[in-house]
Amino acid sequence: MPMNDIYLNDLGTALGSVVEPNNEDGLGHGGHDYQRMVSKIGIRARVVVSDNEYTSDLANRATSDLLQRTASAPSSIDALVVCTQTPDHLLPGVSSRVHGALGLREDCFTMDINQGCSGFIYGTHTLAALLRGREDSQGVLVNADCYSRLIRRDDVTTRILFGDAASAAMFSTRPGGLRLVYSRCYADGRGYDDFVARNSAARKGEPASDGIHMNGPAILSFALRVVPKAIDDALMATGLPLSRIRMVAFHQANDFVIGKLVNKLGLSAEQAPQNCQDLGNTVSASIPLLLAEHMDRLDDGDYVLAIGFGVGLSWGAALFQRARPL
Amino acid sequence: MPMNDIYLNDLGTALGSVVEPNNEDGLGHGGHDYQRMVSKIGIRARVVVSDNEYTSDLANRATSDLLQRTASAPSSIDALVVCTQTPDHLLPGVSSRVHGALGLREDCFTMDINQGCSGFIYGTHTLAALLRGREDSQGVLVNADCYSRLIRRDDVTTRILFGDAASAAMFSTRPGGLRLVYSRCYADGRGYDDFVARNSAARKGEPASDGIHMNGPAILSFALRVVPKAIDDALMATGLPLSRIRMVAFHQANDFVIGKLVNKLGLSAEQAPQNCQDLGNTVSASIPLLLAEHMDRLDDGDYVLAIGFGVGLSWGAALFQRARPL
Repeated sequence: MPMNDIYLNDLGTALGSVVEPNNEDGLGHGGHDYQRMVSKIGIRARVVVSDNEYTSDLANRATSDLLQRTASAPSSIDALVVCTQTPDHLLPGVSSRVHGALGLREDCFTMDINQGCSGFIYGTHTLAALLRGREDSQGVLVNADCYSRLIRRDDVTTRILFGDAASAAMFSTRPGGLRLVYSRCYADGRGYDDFVARNSAARKGEPASDGIHMNGPAILSFALRVVPKAIDDALMATGLPLSRIRMVAFHQANDFVIGKLVNKLGLSAEQAPQNCQDLGNTVSASIPLLLAEHMDRLDDGDYVLAIGFGVGLSWGAALFQRARPL
Repeated sequence: MPMNDIYLNDLGTALGSVVEPNNEDGLGHGGHDYQRMVSKIGIRARVVVSDNEYTSDLANRATSDLLQRTASAPSSIDALVVCTQTPDHLLPGVSSRVHGALGLREDCFTMDINQGCSGFIYGTHTLAALLRGREDSQGVLVNADCYSRLIRRDDVTTRILFGDAASAAMFSTRPGGLRLVYSRCYADGRGYDDFVARNSAARKGEPASDGIHMNGPAILSFALRVVPKAIDDALMATGLPLSRIRMVAFHQANDFVIGKLVNKLGLSAEQAPQNCQDLGNTVSASIPLLLAEHMDRLDDGDYVLAIGFGVGLSWGAALFQRARPL
């Protein structure tokens, strides 16, 4: 039933305009013993927003890039979903800013969703559900965050992890790009406190210091438990062996986590490309940034398995197949 | 195609545990000349959260109420969508807290969306899309906010408008309750600055004072422009005359706005019931709170048209028909 098929046709991107190397120059904290950790996580530098740059700016730039690449008029967009955890304001959402800045239609479905590192999978699943069964409709999924605005400057061990970036993905019922074969989303709210931004929204005055708090060992053990299981679910549902997957697009947490997963799953390094070395962990934009980079290197029929996991705790898997335009 | 039909089967609710009357006792600002405005908006009292009560508490209580009413096990929930603009934290979302507190399944789709007064329509449209075409699946839409945490205590003219509450709506493919006949969502991001919470999220240090800023005249003129048009769209699409609508469930902004709309549309007071007099404007929970109150008074076959409008700017309409369980 081709009308029920949804395609990720193309991607636009935007990076925080400041490159911050993970060294004394970039971090300004020569006294800290972070070198060992930088070497372990394999993140040499990160992109972060400048003083006057916000999530809406990244989202606008990525969406404009996408519209330009696909030669799409703003009036051709039927749905806009922006996934972010660092909106400019609690209200309205970033999608409202993008809608106004780019002049989208009044009957364009325009909504923010809140997800972190699983946000590309949740967003894909949601936008596909919104578009499925409608003829000639297309929607944009934006993944945009600037975690650097939440992390305390003196929390160097968290700063060295995260980069600020955005992606914009065009989804439609029009063949071409990546056909969405499967998507599934998961959650375990018992891990809420393992990855949380204290004093960041309506709940103020918490005894903990401001900023992003992560229980590193708990998150690592979570990732090593749920990611292989989610991959198994995807392969079982689609009847594909792991060897048929050309590329596993892991959420780009860091080289240490991805390396553990690659080893556990017996993948080759070529099957699991990375972009975190020079960008940092760009939250829900990390997978689409990777797809944007590798899209043209894929052959028709190649399978790509995208796996997001992180804050929530929340995770998900989406399987795509490279498809030529009809 | 009954399998494609989605039903709002039942509703749970939770109110902020403090009743704050719109008088000197409740507001503690005898010096302000707010009596004239209180009389105009017709809000006598509001429910607000107590010092230790947050959006997640309201959301948990409303969802527990729903599960109890419907005798549903937490393990029977396939999707949880929480609509809020006042999450406890920017990350994770409130849905994660509810998921953990109630012990939902690991493969329950669990996500926050960010919408204000249009959030019941956007949430209904989204959850219906996620459930449609799946057999035996059910999901919960929670609408929960505590705007009182964003409004400055001394901003009495804004305080007198808003109440804190939550609703939880069970949606499924199982006949019973309200059948979803139609839903459509709209946006106009050019009105972003007409209703905004300054210094509330990633963008700090704005020259404006903290709190919720509303351009009252602009929002009124917006509502009077878009609501009748959205109703027209819904009636055109479904072929129903306005006289066939038993109940128009307007977002409960306040009596002044609803009165203007009722007059403009030529509705009877009985067609447009209100709950804002004693609750205040409870943001995206206002429509489902109204539906919960009136559900049992509807006859089989009665049509209910729900209309949300507000911050974003964003609006939408959903048409339901009262349906007996098969």
